[in-house]
Amino acid sequence: MKKYILKIYSEDEKGLIYRISDVIFKFGLNIAKNHEFVDHEVNKFFYRAEIHTDEDIDKCALTGLLSAMLGSKAHIELIEAKKKNIVIMATKETHCLGDLLIKNYSKEINANILSVIANYDDLRDLVEKFGIKFHCVEAGDLERLEHEKKVLEVLKEYDIDYIVLAKYMRILSPTFVNEYKKKIINIHHSFLPAFIGANPYKQAFERGVKIVGATAHFVNDDLDEGPIITQDIIRVNHEMNWKEMRVAGRNVEKNVLASALELVFDDRVFVYNNKTVIF
Amino acid sequence: MKKYILKIYSEDEKGLIYRISDVIFKFGLNIAKNHEFVDHEVNKFFYRAEIHTDEDIDKCALTGLLSAMLGSKAHIELIEAKKKNIVIMATKETHCLGDLLIKNYSKEINANILSVIANYDDLRDLVEKFGIKFHCVEAGDLERLEHEKKVLEVLKEYDIDYIVLAKYMRILSPTFVNEYKKKIINIHHSFLPAFIGANPYKQAFERGVKIVGATAHFVNDDLDEGPIITQDIIRVNHEMNWKEMRVAGRNVEKNVLASALELVFDDRVFVYNNKTVIF
Amino acid sequence: MKKYILKIYSEDEKGLIYRISDVIFKFGLNIAKNHEFVDHEVNKFFYRAEIHTDEDIDKCALTGLLSAMLGSKAHIELIEAKKKNIVIMATKETHCLGDLLIKNYSKEINANILSVIANYDDLRDLVEKFGIKFHCVEAGDLERLEHEKKVLEVLKEYDIDYIVLAKYMRILSPTFVNEYKKKIINIHHSFLPAFIGANPYKQAFERGVKIVGATAHFVNDDLDEGPIITQDIIRVNHEMNWKEMRVAGRNVEKNVLASALELVFDDRVFVYNNKTVIF
Amino acid sequence: MKKYILKIYSEDEKGLIYRISDVIFKFGLNIAKNHEFVDHEVNKFFYRAEIHTDEDIDKCALTGLLSAMLGSKAHIELIEAKKKNIVIMATKETHCLGDLLIKNYSKEINANILSVIANYDDLRDLVEKFGIKFHCVEAGDLERLEHEKKVLEVLKEYDIDYIVLAKYMRILSPTFVNEYKKKIINIHHSFLPAFIGANPYKQAFERGVKIVGATAHFVNDDLDEGPIITQDIIRVNHEMNWKEMRVAGRNVEKNVLASALELVFDDRVFVYNNKTVIF
Repeated sequence: MKKYILKIYSEDEKGLIYRISDVIFKFGLNIAKNHEFVDHEVNKFFYRAEIHTDEDIDKCALTGLLSAMLGSKAHIELIEAKKKNIVIMATKETHCLGDLLIKNYSKEINANILSVIANYDDLRDLVEKFGIKFHCVEAGDLERLEHEKKVLEVLKEYDIDYIVLAKYMRILSPTFVNEYKKKIINIHHSFLPAFIGANPYKQAFERGVKIVGATAHFVNDDLDEGPIITQDIIRVNHEMNWKEMRVAGRNVEKNVLASALELVFDDRVFVYNNKTVIF
Repeated sequence: MKKYILKIYSEDEKGLIYRISDVIFKFGLNIAKNHEFVDHEVNKFFYRAEIHTDEDIDKCALTGLLSAMLGSKAHIELIEAKKKNIVIMATKETHCLGDLLIKNYSKEINANILSVIANYDDLRDLVEKFGIKFHCVEAGDLERLEHEKKVLEVLKEYDIDYIVLAKYMRILSPTFVNEYKKKIINIHHSFLPAFIGANPYKQAFERGVKIVGATAHFVNDDLDEGPIITQDIIRVNHEMNWKEMRVAGRNVEKNVLASALELVFDDRVFVYNNKTVIF
Repeated sequence: MKKYILKIYSEDEKGLIYRISDVIFKFGLNIAKNHEFVDHEVNKFFYRAEIHTDEDIDKCALTGLLSAMLGSKAHIELIEAKKKNIVIMATKETHCLGDLLIKNYSKEINANILSVIANYDDLRDLVEKFGIKFHCVEAGDLERLEHEKKVLEVLKEYDIDYIVLAKYMRILSPTFVNEYKKKIINIHHSFLPAFIGANPYKQAFERGVKIVGATAHFVNDDLDEGPIITQDIIRVNHEMNWKEMRVAGRNVEKNVLASALELVFDDRVFVYNNKTVIF
Repeated sequence: MKKYILKIYSEDEKGLIYRISDVIFKFGLNIAKNHEFVDHEVNKFFYRAEIHTDEDIDKCALTGLLSAMLGSKAHIELIEAKKKNIVIMATKETHCLGDLLIKNYSKEINANILSVIANYDDLRDLVEKFGIKFHCVEAGDLERLEHEKKVLEVLKEYDIDYIVLAKYMRILSPTFVNEYKKKIINIHHSFLPAFIGANPYKQAFERGVKIVGATAHFVNDDLDEGPIITQDIIRVNHEMNWKEMRVAGRNVEKNVLASALELVFDDRVFVYNNKTVIF
């Protein structure tokens, strides 16, 4: 049996569910699960259906019909469910990367890790243990754009669905981000929008908070301002200095990243207005 | 504008969403929000739609059409959204009751408290402050069924949508429960199924757990075995004896009960197979 | 049996625990519970002991001895455990105030509510139900300091341990705050430092966060910048608009405030460097 | 600088803190951090101090003095802080084991993994990637005690501080447990005492709970009845079947196990009365 995901994002109108299910029904397809949401404030309609079928769907025919009905402005995607191809970018830390390597090894993530790119060589040994290609692209004295150019050259070797920043400690330029629009997912080590920027655990410690957190988000042009996918927190107390908070935060960072990736790789996430709708 | 809730629970079949939305569409009605779930294991279909309309819906006509289409076994409810009428039963504790009294006073609960019944007189003063009728039905030396008969007599005075057991510390007989099937909601002071029965905090303390919780559930014939609506937990530690756990648990008890009631009163909860489906 | 709390905050030195317990031991007193913390970065020592005794402690003698030993810079407090006297300031919302009124009524808070002051008259009926004095001090067209002067006049009537801002929706001037230094506790409806200032739920909604929270803190001169006592969060999702987030946040607001007050009223909280140490 | 942990567990008496700190003070040692707890119900005293020193402590002299003072029934341990030597036992699942392998590789766990023992060969490849010895001791048709005898033979090769059951799916006999009393830590995939025994996720699904969890505990003679170290939970809903709950539970299982191990390996955990005291 094959599984397809149908994702629709359009202006809201009366009767959309009826008309969409009419089309699907007439194609003889069965919806195993569907979710729908209307943001009445901006009049946007979001729809996701899981379709199970024994035969291939004629994608053009189905999306063509839907498009004819919904108008050219509607975003319609019919995705054959499959593992996403990802490249991970990292710096030196092992907790997020290691978690993804183990999950990839055990086939517990809906993705194939094609390779890992880092700006230091420290992670090579760990990555290569798992038979995964490791590229070290050192930043050294390079200008940001020069360094990114080299990274982009490596990335071009791969057919990538998503880039995962698993504690990649460099800021990406808009140029870079625009090459992979809505395809870069970052884990930020604070519950955004608190503690944007460098060393959020130190900021958290100095502010004396009782909760720290982590945020997985799509990367856009503005640092730490992209659409949030998932967040979680842990409690901290006066006995912890900022380094201990950072250590304690590792588990929540890797779990938040893993949860966000699961949602994205299962095609459950819509992005609009710098926000996410998640089914 | 009027708001209706359509709830359908039936055997699953291909095309149900299409056929239901077809009917609604042809009635000229607009679905503001809908949720759907199929339990493939037991082949059951659950559907809830919020319908906003300027005019009254001809209930018989709409449910008749749906029923003709879905078959006589399908459960179809078209509910005009309105505050539920509730009676609260309690014993001596004020935290759950007080929270509901304040929310009722501030119109922050989707219900009207018609009265409070207790087996002691302690809560009279608090309840009457809010101008709500208080009935003390003492249990004294009465047999369970005799006592319940007296309670039922009081209940019969009211047109009740739901009975809320806000720390009512007596076990209800199947006879009583059957009078108000699927209409009695209880707050149990543990995360069920851990610590069924008396004094769960003492049991929790003695077991040395690091988490205690609370569970709101519909009451059925078996003590603490009814369908669970919501649960939440708090952390405890070795410094707390069982009385301190009980004190700490009060906030979670009242919040879990309040959350469950909100879901039930908004007609978001389906009960089947001793479980709940919540949209 | 009487209960005293000994709180010490001083420079750290070798042997402090030994020397303090030596003094207490020689007074023939028994320590039921003690906690200690050293912030090695700033070399500060924090100590709290619960002392149970059948007889009154000669406070001057004991603190005198401790002071002689620890030096004049040490902060030493010996507090006879008792209910704190509090005045609540509020505006129009009932959830935090109502929770405290119920807890005060049931003697489930370690405080006596002496009165409630509000800048509108809306809450009068609720407060007076509980036989508590309500003062409406309208702000109208008054300048901030003029209005505060009137509030201060009312406050002067009471012998106050703490002022609790239970959703008091006005900013307090430094002048006001300095009158009650370290004695004013506020509940802010976000997990600070995210969403400082007005309408944090709207800000949260617009940022598209997946978590919102609440923060109880001491009030200092800078808006929402005071030492944090407790924080908690709830999850939100794309289905909630900001008003629904605000409704959902009420339970967490009132619980966070109640938890913070419990800690403060039990003399468990030290404030230093704009942070709290909590035993 | 060296770090020692002093752990004392004894009958409670007046002045213990004073007398203990007196001894430490007279040894010229500095307490960096100490915690103390008295369980008044059973009159037990628990004490843990971190001692930082430039020179070795004469263990016999210090514990001798303490013992002379506290009596022969007191448990006194002076532990030089060091990485614990552990052997992991597992079956087929990679999430808990993989997490520990990554943490061991990155030196983010206060232990050395000496080897991994499993009753199947599936995990060999993963373990050997990290250069760690893997022993497969198949159970096949062996009686429990026969199989355990073979496992014990392997274990005897190692000088073990703790055995970690990282999803070892076999029940251990009392004979086995008694060989490593208070040294075996298990992760159970439910929030105990709910869902003792086999397939707790299936049990949870069938009961219709809204929360599932995980529990790390010391193993004693009774299945799933040992002293609890840490617990945590995640929320589940009607959309998840029991296999999906099991998948979702993996992250919480591995985090709960990791947290518990951190506490145990840092000598923060006391066990008594089938409970834990954790500083």
